[in-house]
Amino acid sequence: MLKIGILGCGRIGQVHARSIRNLDDARVVAVADAMLPAAEALAAKTGAEIRTADAIIAADDIDAVVIGTPTDTHFDLIQGAATAGKAIFCEKPVDMSADRIRDCASTVAAAGVPFLTGFNRRFDPSFAGIEARIREGEIGEVEIVTILSRDPSPPPLSYIASSGGLFRDMMIHDLDMARFLLAEEPVQVFAVGSALVDSEIGRAGDVDTAAVTLTTASGRICQISNSRRATYGYDQRIEVHGARGLLRAENQLENSVEVATGAGFRRAPARNFFLERYEAAYLAEMRHFVDAVLSGKPPRPSIEDGLRAQLLADAAARSLETDLPVRP
Amino acid sequence: MLKIGILGCGRIGQVHARSIRNLDDARVVAVADAMLPAAEALAAKTGAEIRTADAIIAADDIDAVVIGTPTDTHFDLIQGAATAGKAIFCEKPVDMSADRIRDCASTVAAAGVPFLTGFNRRFDPSFAGIEARIREGEIGEVEIVTILSRDPSPPPLSYIASSGGLFRDMMIHDLDMARFLLAEEPVQVFAVGSALVDSEIGRAGDVDTAAVTLTTASGRICQISNSRRATYGYDQRIEVHGARGLLRAENQLENSVEVATGAGFRRAPARNFFLERYEAAYLAEMRHFVDAVLSGKPPRPSIEDGLRAQLLADAAARSLETDLPVRP
Amino acid sequence: MLKIGILGCGRIGQVHARSIRNLDDARVVAVADAMLPAAEALAAKTGAEIRTADAIIAADDIDAVVIGTPTDTHFDLIQGAATAGKAIFCEKPVDMSADRIRDCASTVAAAGVPFLTGFNRRFDPSFAGIEARIREGEIGEVEIVTILSRDPSPPPLSYIASSGGLFRDMMIHDLDMARFLLAEEPVQVFAVGSALVDSEIGRAGDVDTAAVTLTTASGRICQISNSRRATYGYDQRIEVHGARGLLRAENQLENSVEVATGAGFRRAPARNFFLERYEAAYLAEMRHFVDAVLSGKPPRPSIEDGLRAQLLADAAARSLETDLPVRP
Amino acid sequence: MLKIGILGCGRIGQVHARSIRNLDDARVVAVADAMLPAAEALAAKTGAEIRTADAIIAADDIDAVVIGTPTDTHFDLIQGAATAGKAIFCEKPVDMSADRIRDCASTVAAAGVPFLTGFNRRFDPSFAGIEARIREGEIGEVEIVTILSRDPSPPPLSYIASSGGLFRDMMIHDLDMARFLLAEEPVQVFAVGSALVDSEIGRAGDVDTAAVTLTTASGRICQISNSRRATYGYDQRIEVHGARGLLRAENQLENSVEVATGAGFRRAPARNFFLERYEAAYLAEMRHFVDAVLSGKPPRPSIEDGLRAQLLADAAARSLETDLPVRP
Repeated sequence: MLKIGILGCGRIGQVHARSIRNLDDARVVAVADAMLPAAEALAAKTGAEIRTADAIIAADDIDAVVIGTPTDTHFDLIQGAATAGKAIFCEKPVDMSADRIRDCASTVAAAGVPFLTGFNRRFDPSFAGIEARIREGEIGEVEIVTILSRDPSPPPLSYIASSGGLFRDMMIHDLDMARFLLAEEPVQVFAVGSALVDSEIGRAGDVDTAAVTLTTASGRICQISNSRRATYGYDQRIEVHGARGLLRAENQLENSVEVATGAGFRRAPARNFFLERYEAAYLAEMRHFVDAVLSGKPPRPSIEDGLRAQLLADAAARSLETDLPVRP
Repeated sequence: MLKIGILGCGRIGQVHARSIRNLDDARVVAVADAMLPAAEALAAKTGAEIRTADAIIAADDIDAVVIGTPTDTHFDLIQGAATAGKAIFCEKPVDMSADRIRDCASTVAAAGVPFLTGFNRRFDPSFAGIEARIREGEIGEVEIVTILSRDPSPPPLSYIASSGGLFRDMMIHDLDMARFLLAEEPVQVFAVGSALVDSEIGRAGDVDTAAVTLTTASGRICQISNSRRATYGYDQRIEVHGARGLLRAENQLENSVEVATGAGFRRAPARNFFLERYEAAYLAEMRHFVDAVLSGKPPRPSIEDGLRAQLLADAAARSLETDLPVRP
Repeated sequence: MLKIGILGCGRIGQVHARSIRNLDDARVVAVADAMLPAAEALAAKTGAEIRTADAIIAADDIDAVVIGTPTDTHFDLIQGAATAGKAIFCEKPVDMSADRIRDCASTVAAAGVPFLTGFNRRFDPSFAGIEARIREGEIGEVEIVTILSRDPSPPPLSYIASSGGLFRDMMIHDLDMARFLLAEEPVQVFAVGSALVDSEIGRAGDVDTAAVTLTTASGRICQISNSRRATYGYDQRIEVHGARGLLRAENQLENSVEVATGAGFRRAPARNFFLERYEAAYLAEMRHFVDAVLSGKPPRPSIEDGLRAQLLADAAARSLETDLPVRP
Repeated sequence: MLKIGILGCGRIGQVHARSIRNLDDARVVAVADAMLPAAEALAAKTGAEIRTADAIIAADDIDAVVIGTPTDTHFDLIQGAATAGKAIFCEKPVDMSADRIRDCASTVAAAGVPFLTGFNRRFDPSFAGIEARIREGEIGEVEIVTILSRDPSPPPLSYIASSGGLFRDMMIHDLDMARFLLAEEPVQVFAVGSALVDSEIGRAGDVDTAAVTLTTASGRICQISNSRRATYGYDQRIEVHGARGLLRAENQLENSVEVATGAGFRRAPARNFFLERYEAAYLAEMRHFVDAVLSGKPPRPSIEDGLRAQLLADAAARSLETDLPVRP
């Protein structure tokens, strides 16, 4: 039985609490949030105690922490929890600064504690299935990875301002997915981008439409495209072209009803909300974390994975700025 | 908060307990099973007490019972629970005898307690979506309903012998679905059938492959086909042809990965296990039951629906026997 | 080089002429039609001569005739052409009377001439592919055949009156397909039907919505459903459930564009017109006829196939009338 | 009636001859080929005369020429035919040198003759349908175009050497498609590429796997990826993400049969051969040319379109060489 403390009771903390509820060998012992009502609500649902983050980190009756607080608090919490010997499940991004992620990685390594970076999409049954088939050689050597990733609608402008920009906030998931599927580190990043969805986003110094090309030392290629808007739902598609075949994962629709009329054959839009779209992924992610910690195996993706994705996002931002290909 | 007692802690009782765990306004208070280990296991998972069925039915701290015991015990449990004023969620079939279902219906009506017959498929998001669109007039008047329903593999012969036969055991779900979608009562049933999957099933006096044609007074038609075997998973498809269009629900596959090679484009088999295939349906069914009881509205499908499906299954069996169309 | 005379220059005669134009080893030498302008138009397109039907049948420079005239003229043309030693490609139905088809079959057999009954759907690449895979054992023994067949819209009432009724006019294609795919003769036919599309069709003594169940001696089952109206195009689907798997052919859409918006993912309607939907089938049918005649092998489907489909249609009509299952 | 001379009786000349055979208002009057047997074969099939290219260009009984000869002969034939007042249908690429295409464009403009550059894919019913819907505003402003284009297998090495390289030989189709769908000229081209399919291609100085990013002045983005090999057929997919929705065209499969077994649901590979895949496109292209010439409207794509696609291919090649984004 893994005893868990949840740091941050917002939307993502609640998702992880629900996942834990469905596991037989894990339990939420305590929750913490700077906003008391949020902590109270989650405590009521889980039957857990309310404590401060510091108390949770220091507690003897807690084995692991789930960090779902704002990004700028991650650094201190990781340093504290690692030093206290807690296993750590940390939401992405670990930090906005690659240097600070390196610092965390050192602390985590020194402490020898398990650490999982919350790139939940790796646990999506379809994407995980694609990766497994690549590893088993089903399509031979990977040659071209194509990732189409579009949000249903842009976040509020206030969020954009502090988000670190599209590459660090949104595309970072796709950059991690690219590493996951290319099975080789990208050595070059080229980015283009524009503000086509909302010119205010452009005025805020960010883009809402972007495309990145990654290349690896052996010549593998990955193309990613992002948009902050998709009228037909949360568009999340991946495909991998290999020497012996193609693997692809289509969107997941809201339901499987098809309507045929004079206008043609119509199916539902894609699942619109990320929690619903990745519900199975979040559950599998937590199951993996709990299994790994209980069995003494290192969970994945590691903090190193968190760092490398951040470096790719930084490189993409630099490429967009300079209009040149960049080495990450 | 609806306080529930679970009668029968086998596979289906566990499913319902899991559904209740995901609802905020319902709780399993007590569980009962003739086999103590089964009751103990479910009690441990839910935190509920172990009691006898009689004690649950008589208890003041219980509002509703979920009946998931063997079919031949349903009658007495329904009579007892109804008289005790409990809301009742009863697995299908209510009873193997239509006359005894009528008896139960009288008791339930006299007691004025809410009653839900467990035709879970009505709550499948896709099938429910089809019914809703029919009701909203999206395809005009219903004309032809087609139901293709095939189990992954036949049950053990020992089960076949006491199952009541394919029409009452397996097709009864499709017969209920036909009533749900035709929006008009069938007035004629014609059945054909044979033992193509396993000749032992034929020797046991049953069929494993069957087709039924239903017709309504206004001339609507429903075709159902069943097989006790499908190599490609649990095959569950429905379509409705109406005056203004077609509605259909395709199979749900194990994942959404597609592999393309020289052999073509291949997707996963259909979800193979009924609990997995109808997981969302079971949850929605329990949510509906709890909502209905708490809000004082009658849950659906009713005990009358249970009776009418049974009468259609009886008619199908009679039609197969006589090789004649039969009035239910 | 097969020298062909076309008898009947209406829509179907033109289709066959176009098919022949695409074959290198066949040529239209002469055309005939009771309506001179029709003959002239086709002669102009093909470069063929205009002759009378009798002259074509008697001609030394003609090897084969394609009969696409009204059904009631088939009998005499077949008798004449067979006696004259011509290979015969005759549109379905061979005749409305099974007895007269038997007469034709005798004449054809006595004359030893090749004869093809124009059940074009057997040559649809997808349906032919299904039959080939069944024959090769890809899905093991056939158990259940499901045929969904719906016309875009009903023919004029005037046509209905002289059509022989839905079973002989429309479902006969599906009855032939059932024989093609069941690989065993049906021994029982049960039909239901109603006039849901247009009550005038009912008043004319016909149905526009119908379902038939066929069973074979070994217990194989076929379900067919027909409607005279489908808002979403010409609906032509077939599937075969076997001991080791399922084969199915989906509708062919007008194009392969998909549009995604807030309303969902929409593809085009099904190809609406039978000539367009079965264009490839008509070409393959003529290629088969020409190949068979030139190589001295009997073309398929035979006149016997034409007879058996007609007997099934007759049985379906009798079943509808008597509301009893009928032996064909 | 448009009287046409075919220059070049190889594979593509034969395709165009077959298209013309299906048109009522066009006719092949004469054919020419440096290899007499090729000319004889096509003359036999079409009933056309054999002449020299010069004779065809000079002939009074010919209105238009179809140029399907080797690329290095196009220049002289275009100069000659334009000066002789013939309408010109010229296979792509017009020439390997952008400067020489400019020369041809001047001659064509001066002569005032109709000119079509043979980018056949614009006439594919699905791709043309996408462009039409964009023009009609169905998805709002275009934002991201994604083109996935993979050949079944690489051409012989001998061909590669004289092909002009992947960008000019293969991707030029996709570059034209990008212009067709972006509805705005690309102002920047960035290319990456490698030899993953066959290292010999790399040694020959070319790539077999490549990706290009195009951007327009207003910030629209197009991503193209190419491979010289696809085990699952000729992979030709396009999608356009716009402000109000998504348009996409899936691959066309060899047939529409689906097989379901324990291995899952399998459909046929993609049509493997470009003539089969684009059969409808070739026919529509010729129909457009004939209609345009007969009605006095300029056919499309123009020689200017041919030039601009070539400039994009040149830019892509330069970008690959320099590893920098390039202005076309």
